[in-house]
Amino acid sequence: MVIAPLIERKRDGLALAPDEWRAVIHAFALGELPDYQMAALAMAVVWRGLEPPELAALTDAMLDSGDRLRWDDYAVPRVDKHSTGGVGDNTSLLLVPMVAAAGVAVPMMSGRALGHTGGTLDKLEAIAGFRTRLTLREAEAQVRRIGCVMLGQTHEIAPADGRLYALRDVTGTVESIPLIAASIMSKKLAEGLTGLVLDVKRGSGAFMPRLESALELAQTMIGLGDSHGCHTVALLTAMDRPLGHACGNALEVEEAIAGLQGTGPADLMEVTYALGVEMLLAAGTEASRSSAKARLELTVSSGAALDKLRLMIEAQGGNPAVVDDPGALPQARHSEVWKSPQDGLVSEVAPRDIGRAINAMGGGRQRVTDHVDASVGFHITVKPGQRVQRGQPLATIHARDEHGLGVGRRALEGAIRFGVTADPLPLISHRVTSGGVETLA
Amino acid sequence: MVIAPLIERKRDGLALAPDEWRAVIHAFALGELPDYQMAALAMAVVWRGLEPPELAALTDAMLDSGDRLRWDDYAVPRVDKHSTGGVGDNTSLLLVPMVAAAGVAVPMMSGRALGHTGGTLDKLEAIAGFRTRLTLREAEAQVRRIGCVMLGQTHEIAPADGRLYALRDVTGTVESIPLIAASIMSKKLAEGLTGLVLDVKRGSGAFMPRLESALELAQTMIGLGDSHGCHTVALLTAMDRPLGHACGNALEVEEAIAGLQGTGPADLMEVTYALGVEMLLAAGTEASRSSAKARLELTVSSGAALDKLRLMIEAQGGNPAVVDDPGALPQARHSEVWKSPQDGLVSEVAPRDIGRAINAMGGGRQRVTDHVDASVGFHITVKPGQRVQRGQPLATIHARDEHGLGVGRRALEGAIRFGVTADPLPLISHRVTSGGVETLA
Repeated sequence: MVIAPLIERKRDGLALAPDEWRAVIHAFALGELPDYQMAALAMAVVWRGLEPPELAALTDAMLDSGDRLRWDDYAVPRVDKHSTGGVGDNTSLLLVPMVAAAGVAVPMMSGRALGHTGGTLDKLEAIAGFRTRLTLREAEAQVRRIGCVMLGQTHEIAPADGRLYALRDVTGTVESIPLIAASIMSKKLAEGLTGLVLDVKRGSGAFMPRLESALELAQTMIGLGDSHGCHTVALLTAMDRPLGHACGNALEVEEAIAGLQGTGPADLMEVTYALGVEMLLAAGTEASRSSAKARLELTVSSGAALDKLRLMIEAQGGNPAVVDDPGALPQARHSEVWKSPQDGLVSEVAPRDIGRAINAMGGGRQRVTDHVDASVGFHITVKPGQRVQRGQPLATIHARDEHGLGVGRRALEGAIRFGVTADPLPLISHRVTSGGVETLA
Repeated sequence: MVIAPLIERKRDGLALAPDEWRAVIHAFALGELPDYQMAALAMAVVWRGLEPPELAALTDAMLDSGDRLRWDDYAVPRVDKHSTGGVGDNTSLLLVPMVAAAGVAVPMMSGRALGHTGGTLDKLEAIAGFRTRLTLREAEAQVRRIGCVMLGQTHEIAPADGRLYALRDVTGTVESIPLIAASIMSKKLAEGLTGLVLDVKRGSGAFMPRLESALELAQTMIGLGDSHGCHTVALLTAMDRPLGHACGNALEVEEAIAGLQGTGPADLMEVTYALGVEMLLAAGTEASRSSAKARLELTVSSGAALDKLRLMIEAQGGNPAVVDDPGALPQARHSEVWKSPQDGLVSEVAPRDIGRAINAMGGGRQRVTDHVDASVGFHITVKPGQRVQRGQPLATIHARDEHGLGVGRRALEGAIRFGVTADPLPLISHRVTSGGVETLA
């Protein structure tokens, strides 16, 4: 195909036809479109954006480049939740068993840690033996059997997206709302969902810190989901501080289990319930917000959600003992309580500092092949806006050695800031649907 | 080198350091920077532009990637003229011998036809035997001997530019004023010039039709030339109609020879003298515009310029008989006079239509390897603003067959337009130097 005139058209701010986008992605997936032309086109898209029909065609073409989950006669509604990424964000570990226990299927495909943010796959792999590399056919069978599955994105799903993402990563073309939305949604739509709930993070620890960008990303993904028959809704939540207390793979699994036992941190539970309510409403199995909330609370109080987690861990080859004995999770050799260096008002707990420290302590990857030490991380109980006294314990550092403790100490000294005022973002600030933006706080 | 952060910086509208540009071009010339990263960076430059220090570093790096003409102890001032391209623009064929006959050396490196525009190399090759593929050492020796040379750009000159241009050509990144300026000036600065005169075309037949763009391109190139010790000046000239009467390789050679004999079309001679005056002034050999003009006129009236052309053709292996016998140039088999279809005012003679028709008639290339039929083209005597009568001869079509005549007829029908008013651009509208823009018309 002759691509240069298409690149020029996008460069000049004009739209390509849907068929042209399909042909571009098709040729790219086959290796028939040189990387240098795709890179120039991607940069032109970063510059000029995509009109809705272009975005839909691009997403469809990436979706069609691979396989998808097939549900045929399986009549149970299926929902998923996607987070744009943060620190201490372990709501997936709570939501999958809770929503499945509430009778809605959850076929969740997740990613790994990216930059300073954590990844659900890495958290799951803190559970000894837990297999996240399932085939699509294995995943379908497990959902039909127990109502949920948590797996990694396979090469069978949207391979054109995988190829394009790798190119964008080295050509400065990641930061484009339509390209981000197309990448996420081509994978989520491959799950064959009834509904999808987006947890769009904003604030200093989010990939898109600004409200306007977060809203635009949410609306772009909602447009794509709804137009593909997948009812999509987004909540904007705060990522100007870590969510919950635990930050680090094994610590976050432990915290999620505590949450399913009814003893999770208040902010984590509030976000979890809010997202869970949206998931049940999107599935169409609950008529009202209050009945959905009650249904989810019952999965916790009855122990049904915890049972579902145990079942899923067993089904995927993991050690189910972790559910009843957190000591069965990887334990860091060294831990140290970190105390407030002063009296005062905590103005900030900076998530990027925390996330980067976990990586530096061995809890993340510098390279794709790096081993991740699931045991390291932080348990931070202080929140911005809280008054503390000198010597008061604010956090615990979990490290594999003295060096790691030092990294952790310096990270907390930088991340936990004091001031005369604190102005944290509202925990859940907006609800976005195709109908518009509702301000919640 | 780690290039992705540099691409991101340019994407975000920030500048790269001169050393970073040098490293980028160096790595690219060596094949160590992948084409896909260079393509993304080029698109980011189309979007964001280049600041003057970036542009200077990019140009220097491309210049330094190859060899250049060396003049050492050769004390004669050297000037060149560069046109941004048009239809019927054969001033180079007049200016090189005229300026050389006036005692200023002209080492001119030219290009081939591009799109609808003609190329000086293709025109020269209408002269049987004329060699445009000279080595730099041959070119230097010829200039020292007879004062002028006209050759093609060799691979020895700015190879990084050649590589980048080929990539830009297929990635929609040609249309960028700083990249165009860097590409032209990296080659012109390799000629080791005292001065350079730019003929920046504007109007519908120019690559940059708009005045603002033409002025910006002129100023960008002037900045680069002056900062490299090459005194640079630009004239903005009209390309909303062909220049002169002849359009086509052999026809334009014939017209240039007529011009050197004192019988060239008025508009062609006016532009030629204006550019020639600037060349002599840039060389510093004439103190005033009027003395420079008189000097050039003398080269024509004395026959010295024609002698110089004969000498150059001989030196480069061409048949010098063409100078005295235009019949020695390739002659089209078929020719046909085209007469006005109506009484009226000619409002336009559209250069793009004419240039494209010459290509379609076999006078240009669809591919680099295509044979060019030098004989075909047009002799168009009518100019916009002229009142004509039905049946009055306005042009002659020169073609190799009946099909070509048909193409030519249809092109003239489309290109020569009638209207109630005509508003052609002033032939020479602006003179641009580092000091500013002077309006001439």
